[in-house]
Amino acid sequence: MKTPSIADYALRTYDKLRYSDTDRQGHVNNAAFATFLETGRVEFLYDQEQPLWVPGTQFVIAKLEIDLRAELTWPGRVEIGTRIARIGNSSVALEQALFQGERCAATANTVIVLMNDETRKSHPLPPETRARLEELA
Amino acid sequence: MKTPSIADYALRTYDKLRYSDTDRQGHVNNAAFATFLETGRVEFLYDQEQPLWVPGTQFVIAKLEIDLRAELTWPGRVEIGTRIARIGNSSVALEQALFQGERCAATANTVIVLMNDETRKSHPLPPETRARLEELA
Amino acid sequence: MKTPSIADYALRTYDKLRYSDTDRQGHVNNAAFATFLETGRVEFLYDQEQPLWVPGTQFVIAKLEIDLRAELTWPGRVEIGTRIARIGNSSVALEQALFQGERCAATANTVIVLMNDETRKSHPLPPETRARLEELA
Amino acid sequence: MKTPSIADYALRTYDKLRYSDTDRQGHVNNAAFATFLETGRVEFLYDQEQPLWVPGTQFVIAKLEIDLRAELTWPGRVEIGTRIARIGNSSVALEQALFQGERCAATANTVIVLMNDETRKSHPLPPETRARLEELA
Repeated sequence: MKTPSIADYALRTYDKLRYSDTDRQGHVNNAAFATFLETGRVEFLYDQEQPLWVPGTQFVIAKLEIDLRAELTWPGRVEIGTRIARIGNSSVALEQALFQGERCAATANTVIVLMNDETRKSHPLPPETRARLEELA
Repeated sequence: MKTPSIADYALRTYDKLRYSDTDRQGHVNNAAFATFLETGRVEFLYDQEQPLWVPGTQFVIAKLEIDLRAELTWPGRVEIGTRIARIGNSSVALEQALFQGERCAATANTVIVLMNDETRKSHPLPPETRARLEELA
Repeated sequence: MKTPSIADYALRTYDKLRYSDTDRQGHVNNAAFATFLETGRVEFLYDQEQPLWVPGTQFVIAKLEIDLRAELTWPGRVEIGTRIARIGNSSVALEQALFQGERCAATANTVIVLMNDETRKSHPLPPETRARLEELA
Repeated sequence: MKTPSIADYALRTYDKLRYSDTDRQGHVNNAAFATFLETGRVEFLYDQEQPLWVPGTQFVIAKLEIDLRAELTWPGRVEIGTRIARIGNSSVALEQALFQGERCAATANTVIVLMNDETRKSHPLPPETRARLEELA
């Protein structure tokens, strides 16, 4: 697999690394990677201009696979890339990556599912959500 | 001021220290102390048997003063002591402390205020809340 | 796949859920799952009686795959099960799961690698580490 | 006390709010305020160009007093202002504040102490540290 670059990801954002993200090994704690990947997802899912959910539903994460490739070190920021890999009936597969400068610290595959708040079961993606996802893909 | 002991605090609970609580200085990050103090408050404020708030209100924290006396180190647990120091019209002053074993890591003074969810202003403590707080004091 | 139970995991520990683990969706934030899984790993890797690393090396996580099956809700604790699935030349594959009561909230596959602190490359598992891992498996 | 503005603080930085900073009350968890205040301190204390500590010592926090004035809400960023209020023999008193846009969410008084790594006792501020602090004040 070729080394990923932030340019490979259509949706880009960042988090600022915090001192409290570090752990006693001196680097950014690995569990924080899951937080940075979440930032990459929620910023377009809950975009206040064009939210992707509809009332009575919410996106939940069903699967998260992270390949850790390098450390992140404080201070600095982590660049977060996200792209839509596959749009299912009620789910969306995402590919994500984390970078510090040019260095890729992690790649990830995520599956999110639209869930009905009442039934707690999966909910088909409404046409407007699907259309918006296709625009972003 | 004499060295505090967990026995000085009527309300006692604990948090288990996590690897991710540590920071690059090797000890538990200082900001985590605020989290442990919160645990001491929310467990009696939101006690599921005898909650202290009433519908339409919530307790918010107005002031938090922490004296840091010693490090907390992973692994282990932190013992959290809380006592009610003063019951006001719509606020409650608490004294809290954190211990690892016998060692006092921090003492704290906290003021919490009952807030009306709609007006976002302070709300007089209802008689049943006041009665329950007096029992705990 | 049959529903996992904590009894399926040889290595068992827990974390106490914190109010600050919750997010605006009302449940425990998904990124916290990575923290709980880390607790399951570090408690035997850095066991102060029988640590598994040797000076000049450290275990790093190379891969983390989480299947999220249910919410975790505050208050309470999360039970964390870990078992050794495969011992490689310089890596160890783990299977982990998170439970709240009987309910399985997540299963996970993790690969950790022993890394040489100086070369930052993988380091063969020393015989005593391997022997200890085989005991735990 | 007049309403503070970020312009009142000589040292300015920010943190980006994270989804995981929120709690079940829907806003940013209060304990995160301690993390943001830490960001304001560590960025000048551990400034990689002009660090304020000297080898064999580290700054530790001795006191943290936070007045909470308003909620912080995701998404967005928090502006962090810090100014040096008083330079002691081995300690420094800081005044800090957190803002979301123009709104002041918290003010804080912090005392940090230079500690000798070996004796774990306070260590007089070296002349170059004192000179640099006076420049920043």
